[in-house]
Amino acid sequence: MKVGILTIGNELTSGKTQDTNSSFIVREVNRQGWEVAMMMAVGDDTPEIGKALAHILAAADAVIVTGGLGPTADDITTDAIAAAFGLKLYTDETALEKIRQRFAKRNYHWTGNNAKQAMFPEGAEPIANPVGTAWGFSLKRDGKIVAVMPGVPVEARQMLTDGVIPRLRREFPHAARHVAVKIIKLSGIGESSVDQILAPVDFAGMGVALGSYPNFPEIQLALTARDADQGTAEERVRAAAVAVTEKLKKHIFAFDGDTLEGVVAALLTEKHLTLAVAESCTGGLITDRLTDVPGSSLFLERAAVTYSNLSKSELLGVPEEVIGKFGAVSRETAILMAEGVRRIGHTDLGLAATGIAGPSGGTDVKPVGTVFIALADGRTTVCRDFLLAGGRRRIKVAASQFALILLKDYLSGHEHG
Amino acid sequence: MKVGILTIGNELTSGKTQDTNSSFIVREVNRQGWEVAMMMAVGDDTPEIGKALAHILAAADAVIVTGGLGPTADDITTDAIAAAFGLKLYTDETALEKIRQRFAKRNYHWTGNNAKQAMFPEGAEPIANPVGTAWGFSLKRDGKIVAVMPGVPVEARQMLTDGVIPRLRREFPHAARHVAVKIIKLSGIGESSVDQILAPVDFAGMGVALGSYPNFPEIQLALTARDADQGTAEERVRAAAVAVTEKLKKHIFAFDGDTLEGVVAALLTEKHLTLAVAESCTGGLITDRLTDVPGSSLFLERAAVTYSNLSKSELLGVPEEVIGKFGAVSRETAILMAEGVRRIGHTDLGLAATGIAGPSGGTDVKPVGTVFIALADGRTTVCRDFLLAGGRRRIKVAASQFALILLKDYLSGHEHG
Repeated sequence: MKVGILTIGNELTSGKTQDTNSSFIVREVNRQGWEVAMMMAVGDDTPEIGKALAHILAAADAVIVTGGLGPTADDITTDAIAAAFGLKLYTDETALEKIRQRFAKRNYHWTGNNAKQAMFPEGAEPIANPVGTAWGFSLKRDGKIVAVMPGVPVEARQMLTDGVIPRLRREFPHAARHVAVKIIKLSGIGESSVDQILAPVDFAGMGVALGSYPNFPEIQLALTARDADQGTAEERVRAAAVAVTEKLKKHIFAFDGDTLEGVVAALLTEKHLTLAVAESCTGGLITDRLTDVPGSSLFLERAAVTYSNLSKSELLGVPEEVIGKFGAVSRETAILMAEGVRRIGHTDLGLAATGIAGPSGGTDVKPVGTVFIALADGRTTVCRDFLLAGGRRRIKVAASQFALILLKDYLSGHEHG
Repeated sequence: MKVGILTIGNELTSGKTQDTNSSFIVREVNRQGWEVAMMMAVGDDTPEIGKALAHILAAADAVIVTGGLGPTADDITTDAIAAAFGLKLYTDETALEKIRQRFAKRNYHWTGNNAKQAMFPEGAEPIANPVGTAWGFSLKRDGKIVAVMPGVPVEARQMLTDGVIPRLRREFPHAARHVAVKIIKLSGIGESSVDQILAPVDFAGMGVALGSYPNFPEIQLALTARDADQGTAEERVRAAAVAVTEKLKKHIFAFDGDTLEGVVAALLTEKHLTLAVAESCTGGLITDRLTDVPGSSLFLERAAVTYSNLSKSELLGVPEEVIGKFGAVSRETAILMAEGVRRIGHTDLGLAATGIAGPSGGTDVKPVGTVFIALADGRTTVCRDFLLAGGRRRIKVAASQFALILLKDYLSGHEHG
């Protein structure tokens, strides 16, 4: 089965926004064992939307449309699709009620034009939006399906997996082949190095497709196998994952939907270890990532963002002489920060990062991107140093990544007691 | 003038690679004052390439094509375009010689199929590739231009600015119009309310296009005007911005490239005020955002992420009895956190946030999303409470936004001294 993708919005053609939905949809469609016939993006323009639909449906069995379902005047997707097929609109009372309830629950101000989001072309089946007010819909015409979702990425992703893909599977029951996918997440290595290291592996010969998706500070490898038999597809992916793991073991930090902070949180919780964090150059980002994990209050006692030298002394007990002699960005300071925050937090572990995020503050000896990361457990304190490339945000993100990796490596090889 | 973009390659439809060329081309085309009519992506498929070209050229004056110019068998773009217009291929001797020289200089192995990269449709003008072996070309048919570039991003970017854009400017000398754009950033209001409030403003009558782009927790409004005269375009946008500001003043926090944290940082720096932050539910995110701004060490003294009740007492001096009586998530605790962190940080201002980010921890009286934000300046302490919707990350992001807005509002209306 062939699927086309149509993205609608002036923000795309004006260059205001980059389309991130298409690549996600392409991935999901391919995961089903279906083919992507083409992708198109047009502005909020009724005749162009109609022509685009006709062009895509001439080559594909289904088209997935995103964008232009909002309540405002420039959101014309529903109207344009109805016009393209000569259909009138109707109001779906269930959708209207759910949207109203969503507004009431959040004390949002209900305006008349919100009712527009419960209107669909005649014959369309609404698709619920669990994370927003713009409902989607699917429409069957001449044996082909038009499925429409909002453009907001978080809403589109949810609706694609919960609503659109199941509906397409239902409409085209014989098109689906079994698919097995394994995502492997890597850090601390470049994409071209990964490519070179994996070059000798004959993935095609294993019946597996390899996709590589850099998503700083990570690289995600996707191993995909399709077969009439689910077990066979899974077995192939498993074998390929073993081959990748053999070659890239030390760079792998998570699989599938897991995040680095999620893996660290699970290890801390499982081992009943508590953590305190002292951050300088990362400015709170390490703690922000850890507290994104539900239940992080079980292990995270406190964190100190010690931006000034005084705060490093007062809060963490780093002697002023150490900072004076070695600098706030030094191995010595990093180690004392980790030990200090562990002590004041009464925790099992203390994690610290200090560095120069730039753009100013660098010297010949300690250029921008110099970062020291230390981990103290009350017996020993380890410290690693890094020279990170890029702008301020990129250095913060990379430093937080290496701090969490240091913690993960420690926890993976460590038995508490 | 209208330009279409066509990206060619199975790696795009299979999800192996993400298209990064289109967004770059969109931006450059818009910078010229031209419009992007549409974007398309198709696989390496001769009939589909032909149909895509026809579809785009029905709506656009020119099409910029990338991908499929390499030496291998699946690189069929040149053949497909020649076939679409019924043209034969010819070898350009200059291009052939340059490609040969490039191979010789780098000691690359010359294979027969490399000569393919010097072949173009009859009537096409070759476009040199300064950074690779795949030359591009442009072709004029019925007053419309087809410009073709390789898919490798670094080569496509170079050829676009050096070869394709100048050629399009030469072919359409009267098409270039000047563009003025103003971005207005809003917070604390929904997209549909913005739409309704601005409905009475006749932007079209002012010669300005209004775009609305929700980007949680912000809404960005883009005002765009095009004119033969740059001054006129800018004047129109300025007038429209005044109209928007009049209606939405209290929700506007920044313009153009400015961020909320950047505006707050500039105000603190300008007023020579120092800040300490105490975070609970936001987990470090407020401080992370502030420290994204270069030079934030000028005003940010320290921050404490006091996740445990003990840390609130020990670090910030919030009495255990207050937490026991009113709860860690309460107006009383928020106020004492702000005052406490200001005191220990020896700063002019103390900012604090405490709340329930969920998914667990909510009660009937204090459901998930309850957040208190307090700001202390040594004379008075203000506290605002919020009931925020969404998942854990969304609540953290919204809480950090409202904390920074509270700070910005205070600084905007405040003279130090």
